[in-house]
Amino acid sequence: MTTVKETRDEQPWREIEEEIEGANVAALEETLELLTASDTARAISRLSAHDQQRLLQLLSPEEAAAVLEDIPDAQAADMIGQLPTNAAAAIMVELPSDHAVDVLAEMVPATSEAILRELPAEEQAEARELLSYDENTAGGIMIKEYLVYEQGLLVVDVLRDLEEHAPAYVDFNVQYSYIVDGDGRLTGVLRLRDLVLAQRQTTIASVMIENPTSVRTDAGLAELHDFFEDHAFIGLPVVDDQGLLHGVILRTAVLQAESRVADETYLVSTGIVGGEELRSMGFLRRSGRRLSWLTINILLNVVAASVIAVYQDTLSAVIVLAVFLPIISDMSGCSGNQAVAVSIRELSLGVIRPRDFVRVFWKEGIMGVTNGLVLGLLLGIVAWVWQGNLALGLVVGGALAANTLVAVLLGGALPLVLRGLNQDPALASGPILTTVTDMCGFLLVLNLAAAYVAQLTV
Amino acid sequence: MTTVKETRDEQPWREIEEEIEGANVAALEETLELLTASDTARAISRLSAHDQQRLLQLLSPEEAAAVLEDIPDAQAADMIGQLPTNAAAAIMVELPSDHAVDVLAEMVPATSEAILRELPAEEQAEARELLSYDENTAGGIMIKEYLVYEQGLLVVDVLRDLEEHAPAYVDFNVQYSYIVDGDGRLTGVLRLRDLVLAQRQTTIASVMIENPTSVRTDAGLAELHDFFEDHAFIGLPVVDDQGLLHGVILRTAVLQAESRVADETYLVSTGIVGGEELRSMGFLRRSGRRLSWLTINILLNVVAASVIAVYQDTLSAVIVLAVFLPIISDMSGCSGNQAVAVSIRELSLGVIRPRDFVRVFWKEGIMGVTNGLVLGLLLGIVAWVWQGNLALGLVVGGALAANTLVAVLLGGALPLVLRGLNQDPALASGPILTTVTDMCGFLLVLNLAAAYVAQLTV
Repeated sequence: MTTVKETRDEQPWREIEEEIEGANVAALEETLELLTASDTARAISRLSAHDQQRLLQLLSPEEAAAVLEDIPDAQAADMIGQLPTNAAAAIMVELPSDHAVDVLAEMVPATSEAILRELPAEEQAEARELLSYDENTAGGIMIKEYLVYEQGLLVVDVLRDLEEHAPAYVDFNVQYSYIVDGDGRLTGVLRLRDLVLAQRQTTIASVMIENPTSVRTDAGLAELHDFFEDHAFIGLPVVDDQGLLHGVILRTAVLQAESRVADETYLVSTGIVGGEELRSMGFLRRSGRRLSWLTINILLNVVAASVIAVYQDTLSAVIVLAVFLPIISDMSGCSGNQAVAVSIRELSLGVIRPRDFVRVFWKEGIMGVTNGLVLGLLLGIVAWVWQGNLALGLVVGGALAANTLVAVLLGGALPLVLRGLNQDPALASGPILTTVTDMCGFLLVLNLAAAYVAQLTV
Repeated sequence: MTTVKETRDEQPWREIEEEIEGANVAALEETLELLTASDTARAISRLSAHDQQRLLQLLSPEEAAAVLEDIPDAQAADMIGQLPTNAAAAIMVELPSDHAVDVLAEMVPATSEAILRELPAEEQAEARELLSYDENTAGGIMIKEYLVYEQGLLVVDVLRDLEEHAPAYVDFNVQYSYIVDGDGRLTGVLRLRDLVLAQRQTTIASVMIENPTSVRTDAGLAELHDFFEDHAFIGLPVVDDQGLLHGVILRTAVLQAESRVADETYLVSTGIVGGEELRSMGFLRRSGRRLSWLTINILLNVVAASVIAVYQDTLSAVIVLAVFLPIISDMSGCSGNQAVAVSIRELSLGVIRPRDFVRVFWKEGIMGVTNGLVLGLLLGIVAWVWQGNLALGLVVGGALAANTLVAVLLGGALPLVLRGLNQDPALASGPILTTVTDMCGFLLVLNLAAAYVAQLTV
C-alpha cells in the first residue's frame, strides 16, 4: 500500500481528477486542504483546461479563491479567464484586493474588463483604482482591506462598528485604524489599545495619533524600500497629493514586489517578455510571446551579419576567419552582458543613478582594457598555435581585445541610458548590445584581415 | 544658495569627505542621519577606500553598524574587511546576528576567520553556527535575537528578567518567548499577554502554548514559502532533528531570501559569478571573477567553432554561409535560453520537479517545432531573397528550424537535470546550452551545405 500512497502524493492530480469526474466536492476540498501551496500549484498545472474549469465551478467561491491564492498569478488568470464572467466575478470578490488586481492584470484587457463589469460597484471601483497605478508604486501594491473612520465619530461608535462587522473584518489588521476628515483626508492613526482604554463618549480624534507618517500613491519601490529600511513599521497609509487616503502598504508587499521585479529582470533579459510564462498556459500565447522577441532578434542578427557579406572577398582569401567570427560575436556579448548586469544591479540597489555615467564609463573602461587584453591574448594564442599563423593570432586577438572594451563600455552605459529614458534596461539592453558588438566585432576582424591579407595567406 | 544645497544633496559624499577630513564626528553623524538607506549606500560607494576606513573608525561601533546596515552586504564586507580585526569585531557585535553572518559570508575565509576569532565567545559561537548552515535553509536565514526561558521558571522570574535586561531586549520581539526543557528542547511558546495576566508564582510551563509549530534547520526556502503561505504567522521557531531550539525565522526573512535568490539567478545567468559585484569593490577581485567565467566560455566557444574548421572546403565553396553561421548560433542560443528561463522559473515556483522530464520535453517539443518552423521560414526567405538562391534558403532555414528544436529541448531539460544533480541551473545551463547548440547548428548547416553544394554554387 505504501507504493500507492507514494504515487498519489507524487501525483496528487490523479486523485483530484477522479474527484472532479465524480463531482465529489467534499473529497475534493479535503484533498486540496492537505496539499501545500506549491503542491496545489503543481497539481492544478497538470489538470486539463476542462478539469481546471470544472474544479473552480464545483468549489464554493471562497474555496475556489483559496485555490487561486496558492497558484502563480499568471496561471490563476488563465484559469479564471476561462470561466463564465459571473462565476469569475464571484470568485474574484473573495480574493484580497491586491491579489485580485494582480490576477486581473495578467489577463487580456477584454477578459478583465468583462469580469470587472460583473463585480459589485464597490469592489469594481476599488479594482479599477488599483489597476490605474503602476505596479511598481505604492498605489500598485497597496491593500484596500483596512479600517477607516471619520474623525468626528465617538469611541463608542467605533467599538459598535467593530462588533457589528466582526466577520467582515476578520482578515483586517484591527490593531490600527485610519482616521480621515469629512473629505477623506488622512488625519490620524488610531491604535486599538488607545480605543479600548478611552472614555466611550470622547471623539476618536482626541485619542488618535495625529499627523501620521504616510507615503504617496506614486512612491516607487526604491523609496518604499528605504522607508521600511529606516523605520520599524509593518504598514503605512498611502495618500494622494491632496492627502486623501487611498490604501495601506505593508512591508511584506514591498518585499514581494522586489522579488517579483528581480524575477522579471531575469525573465525579460532571457527573452521571456509580456509577462510570466508557465507551461500550463495556452500554447499560442506562449509561442507568440517567445516569437515576438525572437523575430526582432533574428532581424537584428541579419543586420549585424550583413557586415560579413560586405567582406566576402577577404573571407574567401582567409576562410579560417569564419571559425573566429562566431567566437568574437559570442564573447563580446558575454563581456557586455556582465557589465549590463552589474549596472542593472547597481541601479536597483540605488548606488548609481542614470546620470552617474562618467563613473560607470571609467570603471568599465579599466575593466574592458584588462579583460580585453587577457581574452585577446588567449584567443590570439589559440589561433596562432592552432593555425600556425602569428598574423591570424594578432588579428583575431586584437579584434577581440578592442571589441571587449567596446562591449563593456556599451554594456555598462546602456542600462543607465534606458533607465533615464524610463525604459526597462533588462528588456532592451541585450538586443541593442549584441547587435552593436556583433557589427563592431565583425568590422574589426574583417578590416584588420583586409589590411594584413598578405600575411594571413602565407 | 539653492544650487549649493542641490549639489550637496546630489553628491552627499563631498560633505562626508570634508567631515572625515576634519574628523568632525558630530557633523558626520548628523549628515548620515539625514540620508536615506540608498543615499547612504550611494555616498559610501563614492568614498575612497581610505575614507571608508576612516569613516568606520571615527564613528562609534553602534553608528558604524548602522551605516553598514544601509549598504549592500558585499560592500559592507569589503569595508569592514579592511579594518584592524579588533575594530571590525567591535562593529560586527553591533549588527543583528543574521546580518553579521551575511556580511561575514561575503568575505574571503581568512578575513572572516580572523574577525570571528576576535568576537566574544557567545557571539562567535552564534556566528559560527549560523555560518554552518546553507544560506537557502531555515538555519541560514534565522535570527538569534529572541527570548528563551526554561520551562521550570516561575512567571515572576521571567518578568524580573524582562525588567532587568530591558535595554538588551530592545530589538527583540517580546510578544513571544520560546520555552525549552533542561536540555534545550523546544516545548512551548509563551505569549506576553498570558505572562502578564498569569499568577506570579505559577510556572511558565502552565501558561505557555504547548507543542508549538516549528521548522527544522534544514528546511528549504520552498518549504518555508509554503508554510508562511498557508499560515498567518510572522515568525516560527527553528529546531534540529533532536528538537533543540536553534533560532527563529521571520516571514520577512523568507521574502528577503527569495528576492536574493532571484537576484542571484539573474547575475549568475549573465556571468557575474562568485558573489555580487559592485563597482566600488576592489578591481582585481571584480576582474578576476568576470574572467573566470569568460575564460571557460572562450574555451567552450573554441571547441564549438572547431566544427567550422573541419568544413573549410564546403565553406570555401559557399562563402556566404559564413554570414549565416553567427546568426544560427545566436538565434539557437536565444530560443534555448527562453526554455532555460521558463524551467528555472517553474522549478522555483514548485510547479515542476526535476523528474517532470517528460512533461517539459513534450511541451518544449511542440514549441520547438512551431517556433523552429517560423524562424526557419523567416531566415530561409531572407537568405533566398538576399542571395537569390533558393537552395541557400532551404539549407540555412532548415538548419535553424532543426536547431531551434534541439535548443528548446535541451534548454528545457538542462535546469531539471542540473537541479536533480544539486547544481545551480542558472550557472551551468547557459554555457552547456550554447556550446551544444553551436556545435549542432554548425554541423547542420555545413553538412546540409556539403550535400547540396552543387545547388548552392549555381
